[in-house]
Amino acid sequence: MDDFQIIEETSGLVDTPGFLATGVHCDIRNKADGRLDLALVVSETPCTVAGVFTQNKMAAAPVRLGREQLASGIAARGFVANSGNANACTGPEGLVDALKMRELAAAELGFKPEEVFVCSTGRIGERLPMDQIAKGLTDGKITLGTNSADGLKAAEAILTSDTYSKLVSVEVPTSRGTVRISGMAKGAGMIEPNMATMLAFICTDGQVGATDLQAVLSEAVDASFNAVTVDGDESTNDTALFLANGISGVELSPKSADWQAFKKAVAYVCHTLAMKIVGDGEKITKVVEISIEGAATEKEANMAARAIANSLLVKSSWYGNDPNWGRLMDALGYSGAQVSEETVELQYANAVKEPVAVFSKGRTFHENKPLWKEVVSAKTFSILFNLGQGNASCRVWSTDLTEGYVNFNKSE
Amino acid sequence: MDDFQIIEETSGLVDTPGFLATGVHCDIRNKADGRLDLALVVSETPCTVAGVFTQNKMAAAPVRLGREQLASGIAARGFVANSGNANACTGPEGLVDALKMRELAAAELGFKPEEVFVCSTGRIGERLPMDQIAKGLTDGKITLGTNSADGLKAAEAILTSDTYSKLVSVEVPTSRGTVRISGMAKGAGMIEPNMATMLAFICTDGQVGATDLQAVLSEAVDASFNAVTVDGDESTNDTALFLANGISGVELSPKSADWQAFKKAVAYVCHTLAMKIVGDGEKITKVVEISIEGAATEKEANMAARAIANSLLVKSSWYGNDPNWGRLMDALGYSGAQVSEETVELQYANAVKEPVAVFSKGRTFHENKPLWKEVVSAKTFSILFNLGQGNASCRVWSTDLTEGYVNFNKSE
Repeated sequence: MDDFQIIEETSGLVDTPGFLATGVHCDIRNKADGRLDLALVVSETPCTVAGVFTQNKMAAAPVRLGREQLASGIAARGFVANSGNANACTGPEGLVDALKMRELAAAELGFKPEEVFVCSTGRIGERLPMDQIAKGLTDGKITLGTNSADGLKAAEAILTSDTYSKLVSVEVPTSRGTVRISGMAKGAGMIEPNMATMLAFICTDGQVGATDLQAVLSEAVDASFNAVTVDGDESTNDTALFLANGISGVELSPKSADWQAFKKAVAYVCHTLAMKIVGDGEKITKVVEISIEGAATEKEANMAARAIANSLLVKSSWYGNDPNWGRLMDALGYSGAQVSEETVELQYANAVKEPVAVFSKGRTFHENKPLWKEVVSAKTFSILFNLGQGNASCRVWSTDLTEGYVNFNKSE
Repeated sequence: MDDFQIIEETSGLVDTPGFLATGVHCDIRNKADGRLDLALVVSETPCTVAGVFTQNKMAAAPVRLGREQLASGIAARGFVANSGNANACTGPEGLVDALKMRELAAAELGFKPEEVFVCSTGRIGERLPMDQIAKGLTDGKITLGTNSADGLKAAEAILTSDTYSKLVSVEVPTSRGTVRISGMAKGAGMIEPNMATMLAFICTDGQVGATDLQAVLSEAVDASFNAVTVDGDESTNDTALFLANGISGVELSPKSADWQAFKKAVAYVCHTLAMKIVGDGEKITKVVEISIEGAATEKEANMAARAIANSLLVKSSWYGNDPNWGRLMDALGYSGAQVSEETVELQYANAVKEPVAVFSKGRTFHENKPLWKEVVSAKTFSILFNLGQGNASCRVWSTDLTEGYVNFNKSE
């Protein structure tokens, strides 16, 4: 942890020099409830930019636009993100709306449209209320600032069914000066309640080339946002953007002495946001880590972990503090990964309890039954599998499935 | 429907000449509740046999044994099936127990061990109580019979969390005499509540070669038992067995004039049992048909249907009678099938309502919104997708996800 310091009282993106932010209410949900629903974030100087987008083939209009924009390699000056409407499954008109939103934002700020990214999250299948968005952008331009309140407003404006803002900032000391990295995200809860969407925005004042920035982001996303699941539903709008404005003057590349520290810091930022997302899953009571070791390949490790992480039976048993290891074995068995009763080992562990043996190569440790119950009754615990098939591993974090989740999501 | 007649008052397997059945209580659950938990079914003459087993790599000991037995090609004289204990994840001892159970049954009945199939369903990870099973087999031998009550007892003895027995019988008239086909099954509810297991047993007095019998069973299983899902968890014990004792004297093969009628009748038997299984899913309130047309390949049609059928968000919305088509589009988008907003068409329908347009190639039929709600509020309804990518299709039946399911499965 000497590689970087955590900034305890974070205000999100404005913790990083050169970034201005705000969040405004433009009533995208048509509820006149004053709820912030449009975030605007701008850099004082042009930024290199990296992005990771949903693999969903029904990708929303802003995602399609963002992919194109990123591929063009143009420097970015900021982004605008709304909640309450996903602009997904909206046909050609949806793309026109996303383009218009980008154009309006750019015009307000004096940038080129291609310098501004747009993101949306919320209800699927309805047109964006463009007049309200235009008004929101005008208001946003006026209120943009670098104060703590400005950063907090931006973080609040992107929330949907989240119960709290998700923020993190760190500082990497280098021999050439300090580099800051800040992030904000919104969660894997259901939205409005139409869709689970993950949005994450990360900013740094480090000076990083676009290719290097993309490599760092992709690696960090794989081990964080791509390793959490609440309900297994990948949304139409998932987006992670990483902007680097270079204002610190500290150049960073794989050749720099500080590159590893920078990478670790970005990984920490993404991991922290991902954990805040999973910890705020809709109506959950528990976060469970699934650790797979000894898989034949990384792909298989992932298949094994996800089969467990997304099993309704497994998730229901977590809700009941039930050490139902038979369901884990069953999910492993249909995961598609190479597994066998003869080679697999299973343990439970939690923060205060050393790993407790459950099953090993055909033998069940029935004598440990009271301990199993104790371990899985914790608010967070770990399931440790060694498949005994190879050297690949992976970790995934999931939540329990509760009656509250079903009730919350049963209707609009 | 002229190909075969449904026998309205079915008693299960004893409806087919030459099959004796019974169900006894041997207290496998150690509850001394008198509940029937061991089914014994025997044919007066040797049978050709076909089988389909779970793909789960943690396959239970009886499944491993059954696969071997089937591959040996030996004629079968019957089967024994217990509920309350799955004999899964029980190591080498589990296999010894399954062999012993087969041996005991064969000794009671005067058959060779390889002529008797064994099946288990229930709790995972615990040894079978062999003394009780031995006693059950002795009792079963005495009570074996061909009366209605005997067939019903067998069907009852294999149930776990099912709320009713699942039986069906049909009769195929041929120019050479009548052929009967009977079936019994247990459901995809959770067991004990450790595991969802599907067991199905089908008997006929037709005279059918083992290869042809296997072809008919495999095809019927694909369109029935493999097309229903309650929670997406494939069990360690799923088994379908089909025994033909030939007593009718009616020889049936792909060259027979009556072959198509026989195939249709078997398909009907499997479909009926599968629908009874899904309709008795744990704490469900709704059965939903998902029909995919226009997929690029059959595999993709299946991937698309299953992504929808197993989405927590989609299943929760069914529970709330909520026509949440955005969730369907999202699931389709991450299913892995080739799909595009520009080609996809979606309609809702139910038994009394013609298909109602929801979405077509980028256009949403907002004007139909009240109709959507009406259609999906029915106890059963259909989701009709045309992906516009090719000519492949498939149908899958799923259930809603209820608070009751989560509560029922949260602990032992």
